[in-house]
Amino acid sequence: MTEVIDSRRRKLLVGGAASVVAVAGAAAISPRALAAGEKKSFPSYVAWKEQDSLILHSAQTLETKREAIGASVITPTDRLFVRNNLPAPDESILADRDAWQVTIQGTKQSRTLSLAELKTLGVETVATVLQCSGNGRAFFDHKASGTPWQVGAAGCVLWTGVPVRKVVEALGGVEKGAKFMTSTGGEVLPQGLDPKSLVVERSVPLAAMENALLAWEMNGEPLPLAHGGPLRLIVPGYYGVNNIKYVKQVAFTERETDAKIQTSGYRMRPVGEKGAPDQLSMWEMNVKSWVTSPVTSAAAGRVQIQGVAFGGAHAVKSVEVSIDGGRSWRKARFVGPDLGQFAWRPFVLEAELKPGTYTIASRATNTKGSTQPEEFPENERGYGHNGWRRHAVEVTVA
Amino acid sequence: MTEVIDSRRRKLLVGGAASVVAVAGAAAISPRALAAGEKKSFPSYVAWKEQDSLILHSAQTLETKREAIGASVITPTDRLFVRNNLPAPDESILADRDAWQVTIQGTKQSRTLSLAELKTLGVETVATVLQCSGNGRAFFDHKASGTPWQVGAAGCVLWTGVPVRKVVEALGGVEKGAKFMTSTGGEVLPQGLDPKSLVVERSVPLAAMENALLAWEMNGEPLPLAHGGPLRLIVPGYYGVNNIKYVKQVAFTERETDAKIQTSGYRMRPVGEKGAPDQLSMWEMNVKSWVTSPVTSAAAGRVQIQGVAFGGAHAVKSVEVSIDGGRSWRKARFVGPDLGQFAWRPFVLEAELKPGTYTIASRATNTKGSTQPEEFPENERGYGHNGWRRHAVEVTVA
Repeated sequence: MTEVIDSRRRKLLVGGAASVVAVAGAAAISPRALAAGEKKSFPSYVAWKEQDSLILHSAQTLETKREAIGASVITPTDRLFVRNNLPAPDESILADRDAWQVTIQGTKQSRTLSLAELKTLGVETVATVLQCSGNGRAFFDHKASGTPWQVGAAGCVLWTGVPVRKVVEALGGVEKGAKFMTSTGGEVLPQGLDPKSLVVERSVPLAAMENALLAWEMNGEPLPLAHGGPLRLIVPGYYGVNNIKYVKQVAFTERETDAKIQTSGYRMRPVGEKGAPDQLSMWEMNVKSWVTSPVTSAAAGRVQIQGVAFGGAHAVKSVEVSIDGGRSWRKARFVGPDLGQFAWRPFVLEAELKPGTYTIASRATNTKGSTQPEEFPENERGYGHNGWRRHAVEVTVA
Repeated sequence: MTEVIDSRRRKLLVGGAASVVAVAGAAAISPRALAAGEKKSFPSYVAWKEQDSLILHSAQTLETKREAIGASVITPTDRLFVRNNLPAPDESILADRDAWQVTIQGTKQSRTLSLAELKTLGVETVATVLQCSGNGRAFFDHKASGTPWQVGAAGCVLWTGVPVRKVVEALGGVEKGAKFMTSTGGEVLPQGLDPKSLVVERSVPLAAMENALLAWEMNGEPLPLAHGGPLRLIVPGYYGVNNIKYVKQVAFTERETDAKIQTSGYRMRPVGEKGAPDQLSMWEMNVKSWVTSPVTSAAAGRVQIQGVAFGGAHAVKSVEVSIDGGRSWRKARFVGPDLGQFAWRPFVLEAELKPGTYTIASRATNTKGSTQPEEFPENERGYGHNGWRRHAVEVTVA
């Protein structure tokens, strides 16, 4: 694996993930290297990431360390988690960003628009929590398959792009009968396999269009390849998988796509059951929070207990913190500017802690009145965990 | 000059600016190299910067290109301007950030606190416009000495740290009679010269303490050396020079410091006059805005005219855009979340432009009712320019 070394971020990265991982799902990191605790090299498409802040689970899955999340209003791009369902396309798709094309279908006029054309139609910036459906998978008791994410398959990001509704307006509106927005990623599919079993194509309810963005920037810079550049669909309040990278088509459809990732993938189901279209799809996120500092130890005296909280599809309203494993709770204070309905809010609770061991938990409530439960039901794929007990940390104060 | 090449940002930078520039004010870049248009290497302490987005004026002055400012709510750290009055200290001061010490004086108790102790006293995040007093110097007619900044000696940054008032509270409050907050930077002063002529020590009115922060993070990451890490004083609404880097002392004083940078430096004065303490000090910023896109050319048709606007010491209230050199104005729309009183707000005006040449200007108004003037008075050092006419851009639409 060639790691390109350069001081300028996201520049001069040659080749793409395709040259690193030839087949979807193959592990670029040998289990032996992991077991030996060797220093792992990051694949070239994420070589610019802040290595000390991330856990490299595989070539396509990087998790932000809990203590590296800090109490920031936004997650710096170089600390943000990465999760690709397929290897990223070749870096060459970023050579001429404005030339990237996306086809819009299911509108009065169907059209293929370049990114340069999209930029003339409008501009908006929205902060959203980007979170993998499986964030918190490690906290389930059964051994769910997939990356054992703890809390770091999530971040809060500023996206800049054109609102999808502005594009739709320019094309005469959505055709009658459409119930879903169905979008397709531009990943290169391996030959010889059924495309429907691999393509990253997701349908979300049409209503999600209202807040959706076709984004070309994140945190004020052009979208890097690892995060879907040159163009990504952002569906605020929805789980990560619905935020299609390298988006090449957005269609307004009567039915959900028959791609496997939609029909049986990303479905909430009892342990042991197969995925099916009648199960809950991983669309809107639920309310959630976790402590980011302290995580393991602290000096006795005044301690600033910090974390992040978000409301899912609705704004977060409040968050409580417990230092006694949930027996008593105190209301925490939000820190920093409010970036809007779909952003997370850092929080802090100041506490005087004597030497001892503390189980520190947090519990958020959103504006719809939903509060994090103590436990979350086991489910086959380990999705959607927002139970506060398993998200708690054990902190030694000395 | 050794440029350390590494894919991990802000890591493994060896040496410091001191090894690049031995004496304050010395130019590390030869005029010959500049004249020849050669590719300039960035000094090691800023080698991690996004080189294509910045203009390297000297080893201690980097400006963000106008078109790289974009319409972002915050300025990515790797695109933010740099202006150091003295060479940055050695990178080794970041080896143990929590051990950094700052002395607080002029409070009931005087104390030296470590960064680790500061972190126990409170935490807040504030977005501020960081702007050099000389931003816009290039737009004055007389040849003011100093870096010929255009618009890019400014950015909007999220700072995280402890409010100064929380520190002061913990030390029993400010002593009677104090009228200023006087803070000192930790730069290493060259031997054999009068320290008062070089030290970066600035006094601001005591009232500025209310919003001030001792910050250890910017944009969610530990403060880099180039921007004052491990600890920087942030004075929201005040010009950059008051935001002391490597801050090692904060004193509450009856009088302004007698350091040269305060007594005669950073004073607003008529052309040809020497600096003196009775002239206006570069404290609170004024209301300002500029267009960031398009800057030189655009395709005919619908165009999203974008820029940034801020109110200075007061929040920005509105911004107007003119496409005819100021003969007529239309109200622009703010884009993205409002990060608070001291942040800038990106704006957009959608216009249908036929082929031709347009002089595009913007004019902001703050909540105190101040509006950008058409012209700004010439002054000796070229400070504080917020005249809208000179900030306009000439755009060819074809």
